[in-house]
Amino acid sequence: MISKLLPNSIKYDGSQIAPLWAYSMGIKGDSIVVFHGPMDVTPENMKDLEDRKAGETIRGDDLVHIIVERFDSPSSMRLAYYMQRLLVVCIKDVLETHGIKTTRNGDDLFINDGKLTVSIASAGVSGEKIHCGINITTRGTPREVKTAALTDFGIKDWRTLALEIAETFVHEIEDIEGDIVKTKSL
Amino acid sequence: MISKLLPNSIKYDGSQIAPLWAYSMGIKGDSIVVFHGPMDVTPENMKDLEDRKAGETIRGDDLVHIIVERFDSPSSMRLAYYMQRLLVVCIKDVLETHGIKTTRNGDDLFINDGKLTVSIASAGVSGEKIHCGINITTRGTPREVKTAALTDFGIKDWRTLALEIAETFVHEIEDIEGDIVKTKSL
Amino acid sequence: MISKLLPNSIKYDGSQIAPLWAYSMGIKGDSIVVFHGPMDVTPENMKDLEDRKAGETIRGDDLVHIIVERFDSPSSMRLAYYMQRLLVVCIKDVLETHGIKTTRNGDDLFINDGKLTVSIASAGVSGEKIHCGINITTRGTPREVKTAALTDFGIKDWRTLALEIAETFVHEIEDIEGDIVKTKSL
Amino acid sequence: MISKLLPNSIKYDGSQIAPLWAYSMGIKGDSIVVFHGPMDVTPENMKDLEDRKAGETIRGDDLVHIIVERFDSPSSMRLAYYMQRLLVVCIKDVLETHGIKTTRNGDDLFINDGKLTVSIASAGVSGEKIHCGINITTRGTPREVKTAALTDFGIKDWRTLALEIAETFVHEIEDIEGDIVKTKSL
Amino acid sequence: MISKLLPNSIKYDGSQIAPLWAYSMGIKGDSIVVFHGPMDVTPENMKDLEDRKAGETIRGDDLVHIIVERFDSPSSMRLAYYMQRLLVVCIKDVLETHGIKTTRNGDDLFINDGKLTVSIASAGVSGEKIHCGINITTRGTPREVKTAALTDFGIKDWRTLALEIAETFVHEIEDIEGDIVKTKSL
Amino acid sequence: MISKLLPNSIKYDGSQIAPLWAYSMGIKGDSIVVFHGPMDVTPENMKDLEDRKAGETIRGDDLVHIIVERFDSPSSMRLAYYMQRLLVVCIKDVLETHGIKTTRNGDDLFINDGKLTVSIASAGVSGEKIHCGINITTRGTPREVKTAALTDFGIKDWRTLALEIAETFVHEIEDIEGDIVKTKSL
Repeated sequence: MISKLLPNSIKYDGSQIAPLWAYSMGIKGDSIVVFHGPMDVTPENMKDLEDRKAGETIRGDDLVHIIVERFDSPSSMRLAYYMQRLLVVCIKDVLETHGIKTTRNGDDLFINDGKLTVSIASAGVSGEKIHCGINITTRGTPREVKTAALTDFGIKDWRTLALEIAETFVHEIEDIEGDIVKTKSL
Repeated sequence: MISKLLPNSIKYDGSQIAPLWAYSMGIKGDSIVVFHGPMDVTPENMKDLEDRKAGETIRGDDLVHIIVERFDSPSSMRLAYYMQRLLVVCIKDVLETHGIKTTRNGDDLFINDGKLTVSIASAGVSGEKIHCGINITTRGTPREVKTAALTDFGIKDWRTLALEIAETFVHEIEDIEGDIVKTKSL
Repeated sequence: MISKLLPNSIKYDGSQIAPLWAYSMGIKGDSIVVFHGPMDVTPENMKDLEDRKAGETIRGDDLVHIIVERFDSPSSMRLAYYMQRLLVVCIKDVLETHGIKTTRNGDDLFINDGKLTVSIASAGVSGEKIHCGINITTRGTPREVKTAALTDFGIKDWRTLALEIAETFVHEIEDIEGDIVKTKSL
Repeated sequence: MISKLLPNSIKYDGSQIAPLWAYSMGIKGDSIVVFHGPMDVTPENMKDLEDRKAGETIRGDDLVHIIVERFDSPSSMRLAYYMQRLLVVCIKDVLETHGIKTTRNGDDLFINDGKLTVSIASAGVSGEKIHCGINITTRGTPREVKTAALTDFGIKDWRTLALEIAETFVHEIEDIEGDIVKTKSL
Repeated sequence: MISKLLPNSIKYDGSQIAPLWAYSMGIKGDSIVVFHGPMDVTPENMKDLEDRKAGETIRGDDLVHIIVERFDSPSSMRLAYYMQRLLVVCIKDVLETHGIKTTRNGDDLFINDGKLTVSIASAGVSGEKIHCGINITTRGTPREVKTAALTDFGIKDWRTLALEIAETFVHEIEDIEGDIVKTKSL
Repeated sequence: MISKLLPNSIKYDGSQIAPLWAYSMGIKGDSIVVFHGPMDVTPENMKDLEDRKAGETIRGDDLVHIIVERFDSPSSMRLAYYMQRLLVVCIKDVLETHGIKTTRNGDDLFINDGKLTVSIASAGVSGEKIHCGINITTRGTPREVKTAALTDFGIKDWRTLALEIAETFVHEIEDIEGDIVKTKSL
């Protein structure tokens, strides 16, 4: 699994959840790509129908964005969500090493009762994809939701954090793959 | 997913990892079954070939045993391991609510540098299975490994803990299933 | 599997075969949804290319509509059609308890030589879907086809019939699931 | 799908449910094989754990035996059972054309309240298999179960019946395959 | 697998890679369809993102076109590419019997250092598809690529060649299927 | 995919086709392992039932043995055989660079009309496996079959050849994987 940080700000509008988006960034293969930038997901790019029905806004002025793609034949929506949960666990673990204690509820992380992250997983014919956004700032986040953000808890450098998350996730996935190849089937 | 606690002590010898073991206990369907008892895995029941090659002993005088079965067509060794990692995360989270801080490395939990758990996942044609054992006592655990145990950290009642773990895991899985059925594919 | 009757008349135009349509009706999970209403399938919603090529009209002034959705990772077009055949068998069985003898040919039911039903099955990345329509009246059905309808055979109350069909199908599917979890693989 | 009648009596002891049994009979490919003979399933060949746990006897002096094999990559226990249900529906339909009215409950057929059939489905890595036995005589069937048999209802010639069932099932399966190849995915 | 030669010239614009295209040509089932005609793939029909990114032209005035479709539940992008490689090997083998020695590099065939073929494979929910085009003439092929063509090496009759390729491929696939049904699983 | 040459002579008795055999040789992950040694496949290790039924002997005094393992969830017997065909094509291509012209018929290579190779593919729950043996000498091969061997055609050094085959196959597989990750689904 390739790990890559894109240094420039990129707006996440939900189009990046499409298969092969990473390829358009020059990345070929299973990957975790991290960057930062604002978020404003257009309704047609909302994969979670609950959000779309509710007419929710998925917004923020600056977030760390994490995009995971795994090529799979056949692909599995279920595996996409299991993988997403592990990604969120990795984020939680890394934040803890930075002294930020979060609570996980499904695929959401909270600091106290402020929502720190948004996330979606899905699958297409060619494989699984995950997006997770971590608020760098609470500016621009929806008013109706109490949110939390990294800068309010002393994280100045999103790059270091993002790279640690990517590294932790890659290690997690490769550790699983390493277990698979030494296990007898039932 | 059915959650069931078997009150009597049962020796875990590795045969319980076989498909449909829960059915022989009267449990019909996807399940998480918890019980306690000694552990002594016979070499032919070792699914992790690393253990078998090393001639390892997988032993202990008393552990909480957690057996998960998920029926799946077709089944997936990979999903088995993703599910296992989430089970171990659930155990970690529940222990934390009991004031026991553990460190996770793949599918192992440690207290300080003492190994608290053993775990294996695998798949057969009919579905996925997971075993995780949590030391209640360090007695009977292999001498060559530094181990940790629940009783040394103040857990007197394995039942309460086991039920909380089972409940947390069932909630985690059902939360994932709830996400799947509201997600558009790519 | 959730069984739900929608009391109001809804026009079936083929858009209801899309994944997650039931979710837009407030139903979350595997489901069989029944309602009644006219039918006029637009060409772009025809999944059976034979119909589309032939420029066929798929129409009627009032039918019982049955929509089945099963979430599946990975999904299977084949399973969709096997499930559809069983749905049609369930309809046949329920009609027989109401004194209506039908003949089944694949996924079509006939009374004498009048076509009583239309049906399609298909699959997307997220799972399988089935539609089956049962003519309440022959009014509005294509002229070039001899059709039959429930009202001509004494069925006044589509609701009772529809609920019995849904219940029978749910029982059939759950009976199969119950067999799966007690069967050893080969 | 190859349809073949083996003229000689063969005892069904459950070993015929193993993958590639038909190959040992000279049949290469997906197949439905019919023959007649006694039945006495040994416990180790019982795939239904409910039967095995109950210490049931699965016996009879003479039955029509139907063995279906479908090669599949990957295979599916679920598909095996859906296919089995359709096989039982085909048997029911053929019996009806011979003036024998049966009631189906899952994978069992009854005449009045006498059990006419036994059946199991399962899957291995290479594909799906089904066995269904239809009592030609009630002799030798378990005493604790009320059974029914073909000869008591005027069927003298098991061959004609068996061939009609095989033909009906092959037609059903090929009809499904014919639908699959003209259906757009969702 | 159905093998069919369409005698008329058809322009390949990439739309023929869509599932069920063969059905619109009256072909029902797994198939290899061969025809000839010009090629000009529109960017939205380019499945290989490398080509699309590079703004490549995929063109020629006259090619033999081979379209393979395999219905599959679930389908597999990986199998699509394995099948494509075998198709290209079959083309190579047939050309060799006509005295034309080619070199294969992945899915490309070269005569000396002139590129003779273009090819793509992909999968949708309903199955796998492959296109392979063989230059009949180098006219109209992209200027920036050195190309080779059948007519320059003495092939006058594309029909004979195309039919031999189709026949060889069908034999290859059926030979594999014949092996599958006599092989014990592990 | 790991490529490894085992320098010592190892007798191939068919047990090496079992999943995770390479792991017992210290190889962890997808692999192609090459070694040389005699061959005498015991009937219980024959996966091709045609061989077993015929009471065939699968023997030789010295062969190059190639063992491929690919971990896969779910696994596919079909993919195993497609992969095997490509392995045999790679062997053919490498031999040709050494001036040895072979003819391929399915998974068999012939020099003139002498059979040079034996091969089998199969799948278990954990993945796919392939064995291919190439006669170094005709000594010890079955009398009833006309065989060919490398030494009769000037190959003195099996190691060089084996490594070239392994390298060619690894390149082929990785080339396919590289195509998968740049292809849009249908």
